[in-house]
Amino acid sequence: MKVGMVGLGKMGLNLTLNLLDHGHEVVGYDTDLTVQEKISYEQFSYQDSLAKLVSELPTPRVVWMMVPAGDVTENVISELTNQLEAGDMLIDGGNSNYKETLRHAETLKEKGMYFFDCGTSGGTDGARNGACTMVGGHPDKFKHIEPLFEAVSIENGYLYTGKPGSGHFLKMIHNGIEYGMMQSIAEGFDILNKSEFDYDYEKVAKVWNHGSVIRSWLMELTEQAFSKDANLDEIRGVMNSSGEGKWTVETALDHQVAAPVIALSLMMRYRSLEDDTFTGKVVAALRNEFGGHAIVKK
Amino acid sequence: MKVGMVGLGKMGLNLTLNLLDHGHEVVGYDTDLTVQEKISYEQFSYQDSLAKLVSELPTPRVVWMMVPAGDVTENVISELTNQLEAGDMLIDGGNSNYKETLRHAETLKEKGMYFFDCGTSGGTDGARNGACTMVGGHPDKFKHIEPLFEAVSIENGYLYTGKPGSGHFLKMIHNGIEYGMMQSIAEGFDILNKSEFDYDYEKVAKVWNHGSVIRSWLMELTEQAFSKDANLDEIRGVMNSSGEGKWTVETALDHQVAAPVIALSLMMRYRSLEDDTFTGKVVAALRNEFGGHAIVKK
Repeated sequence: MKVGMVGLGKMGLNLTLNLLDHGHEVVGYDTDLTVQEKISYEQFSYQDSLAKLVSELPTPRVVWMMVPAGDVTENVISELTNQLEAGDMLIDGGNSNYKETLRHAETLKEKGMYFFDCGTSGGTDGARNGACTMVGGHPDKFKHIEPLFEAVSIENGYLYTGKPGSGHFLKMIHNGIEYGMMQSIAEGFDILNKSEFDYDYEKVAKVWNHGSVIRSWLMELTEQAFSKDANLDEIRGVMNSSGEGKWTVETALDHQVAAPVIALSLMMRYRSLEDDTFTGKVVAALRNEFGGHAIVKK
Repeated sequence: MKVGMVGLGKMGLNLTLNLLDHGHEVVGYDTDLTVQEKISYEQFSYQDSLAKLVSELPTPRVVWMMVPAGDVTENVISELTNQLEAGDMLIDGGNSNYKETLRHAETLKEKGMYFFDCGTSGGTDGARNGACTMVGGHPDKFKHIEPLFEAVSIENGYLYTGKPGSGHFLKMIHNGIEYGMMQSIAEGFDILNKSEFDYDYEKVAKVWNHGSVIRSWLMELTEQAFSKDANLDEIRGVMNSSGEGKWTVETALDHQVAAPVIALSLMMRYRSLEDDTFTGKVVAALRNEFGGHAIVKK
């Protein structure tokens, strides 16, 4: 199949190479002109505008977007919907908020186009060698683009998830679970680190990856991290986040689901971003006010 | 090696069969006389008392206990230390609290015996076909019994963890991490379940096990559970616990480690044991007192 790929960053580039390896043709576009040099396949052509990319595709056109969620996604969809025609299909493979996805799907539907939201997991290595993809959108039209997901995904690694929005929603929840699993693993190692025992964390992660209940890809990554830096002395415990954990907690609130573990995982990330906290100052001040307890002065 | 196995329940039986398959000789004991019928190996002999079991073993004797933590473990250790001699080795493969293990190790040390604490993960299937074992105790004497752990564990699935107590401590933390991972997975599915989308949970767990970041043995068990009962209609959400999560949280408190995710996983288990809560009554009563908000009457 001939498919347009908009965005040839870390994920888009690797998905493109993956598609090309599986015999598909790709017409690529990125604002960074240099990325085309990274793709030396005969079935790949680079276009320097969205209009040219669209003009290179047979109808019904299939365009796959791998661009940052938010404004960039909005702008690309807005421009593409002016270039594409009724019957064309647009895949958003980024981490868009599912509520925005619902709106995008409506916009395209009004124009007779088909919108697919694809949650993509497995990192850049997955994108290159076999991703996990979760795709929402029109069920019949999905059959047309299914070979693409079969190509880029690991065996049994793609799922048609239902109506538009369901793919990004599922990826959002996947990331929320990921937050909780990561925080739980991290708390365990923190207790080991403060204990009276002297563990080799790489060996601990390794043995846990062989036959234990908590064996997992995240524990394999834990083992890999400790193999590079036995006590993680070289990094600070600053835990950034990219939005999907927050959306998961917002969604839990919307639906009144008690999800304390995912919520606290997110809060602990926020806490890690501050060297000191106003919360801490308020509590210290209060202890001093009512009990004369010592406060730590600046 | 000829080894005594005390306790032929689900775990002890499977470890015994595993040891026998790997060419070791086992002398078994259990208060349930019928279990001996489940083991038809020439290199297995059943004894109907601890004294007879001990008398069947060559010196230095190696006795492996797989009995419930707490009183049973205390009683067996107490009786065995009267039967064993200086130089003999005793392995506690159960889920004992590491603080009790430290005491047991001291008791045996005073008698010139060697105590090993072995945390065992992987469930009954692991015990039969390849467990994950974490063993604390005397480093030189460990070499003597190492072939046993090499035999019953999956490849790379055993670790000498250091001084006495370190094996059970590590297994405790493993279980604490397990609590957090399970709760996180469960919260994710709870949000899916209350969402506007219509997911097939077995298929969701399956796709997440193929290439996603959260692929794990626990997610495989999730897939298996949904394959048997698509919406878990047949079971209630009562989450029991066996102590190790509680000990992990107690240890976090002892060492002043912020471990909210593991702690909340435990609290949510406690909450699940009650149909109604006194907390709920107090909050409902207060809302009624200050704001006249409606209360739900019995």
